[in-house]
Amino acid sequence: MKIGVLLHGCGVYDGTEIHEAVLTLLAIREAGHDYVCFAPDKKQHHVIDHTKGEEMNETRNVLVESARIARGEIKALKVKSADEIDALVMPGGFGTAKNFTQWAFSGPDGDIDPLVSDFLLSVHGQGKPIAALCMSPTTLAKAFQDSEVSATLSVGSTDESSPYDIAAISGGMESVGMKTEMKTVQEISVDAENKIICAPCYMMDADILEVRNNIKKAIEALIDMA
Amino acid sequence: MKIGVLLHGCGVYDGTEIHEAVLTLLAIREAGHDYVCFAPDKKQHHVIDHTKGEEMNETRNVLVESARIARGEIKALKVKSADEIDALVMPGGFGTAKNFTQWAFSGPDGDIDPLVSDFLLSVHGQGKPIAALCMSPTTLAKAFQDSEVSATLSVGSTDESSPYDIAAISGGMESVGMKTEMKTVQEISVDAENKIICAPCYMMDADILEVRNNIKKAIEALIDMA
Repeated sequence: MKIGVLLHGCGVYDGTEIHEAVLTLLAIREAGHDYVCFAPDKKQHHVIDHTKGEEMNETRNVLVESARIARGEIKALKVKSADEIDALVMPGGFGTAKNFTQWAFSGPDGDIDPLVSDFLLSVHGQGKPIAALCMSPTTLAKAFQDSEVSATLSVGSTDESSPYDIAAISGGMESVGMKTEMKTVQEISVDAENKIICAPCYMMDADILEVRNNIKKAIEALIDMA
Repeated sequence: MKIGVLLHGCGVYDGTEIHEAVLTLLAIREAGHDYVCFAPDKKQHHVIDHTKGEEMNETRNVLVESARIARGEIKALKVKSADEIDALVMPGGFGTAKNFTQWAFSGPDGDIDPLVSDFLLSVHGQGKPIAALCMSPTTLAKAFQDSEVSATLSVGSTDESSPYDIAAISGGMESVGMKTEMKTVQEISVDAENKIICAPCYMMDADILEVRNNIKKAIEALIDMA
């Protein structure tokens, strides 16, 4: 199988969470399948100095930065990219909520990039499963907002420690018509009807080892569904 | 144990090879130890568009870009950083041969950054083991060039397919006083006397799965030596 990996920059605070992306590629190959990376050819929302968390006076491109993670092997995202793949993985990082939606700034009220939305709806409409890691379920929620789909999604659990407000983000996803459930980094959320898998990863206070196991579990479940 | 990881940017063509860096962090935690990331606070040699391999008209900082891989948890490299760690891993990527030495442009003839050289000599002088992945053995060779140390190093093998000229790079390391040996991506090179381990990783035509296993082997050997 050929499994798509949707990237949105390179670095947790303004793009793709790098560990999650690399561990996704690893888990796909460990399962004996091939990956193909995609990212939209558009300007990043902004650039963050990852030593300080402060904005830098720079402009970067989502596709060009994502290519760093993909070692240059990446395609510009098109709606028709959905036709090329058997399943999709969406790694996390703030890029999903800054470059795909505006969730990081205005929660569920902001718009989703129509290319990303149309691509995700096409993957889903073709009956292909999607694994949304970390913060990525919020992007799926925005893609499904004006559709018939009310998927069950999870961005983590309020039962364990998280740097983020899991309850507020879950409430936001419910406000656009989704169902949510609480899952720790030891667990994944599986919506068999809609073929959606969520894994909290670094939404929780997690170690790279926990994130690695969380992603491996998600990818295995994704492949079982494809 | 606390294991140092020396980064030199974020992206294979102008900085640290991202897969190798992340799989290093994973292997350290899998072995039950902790990592601490370091990078020098200096300008990158240049910035490469990873979709095209072409230079971009931009300036980036090695520490700031490396922080993307480390999720912000990184320290500016000092010579005294050697005192903080029990062992060191040097992931590969062109950054080692562009930001630490000038090997990418002038082979063994260029200079090594004296901070990097002094740091590496201090780690080695304290009897702490070093694992040099991918292209990083060339930086070790430059650090040892004016010392008594003639380490046995490897950047890969001419027996299997590689995108690089393994024979020429090996010859370059010999020209500055090192010994070299040929190792495939299934193997590691171990210099027990000097406590140096080399793993070819992406110097060979390798898959992320082979690189993962190569790094795991190197980190386990490193920990056995520490």
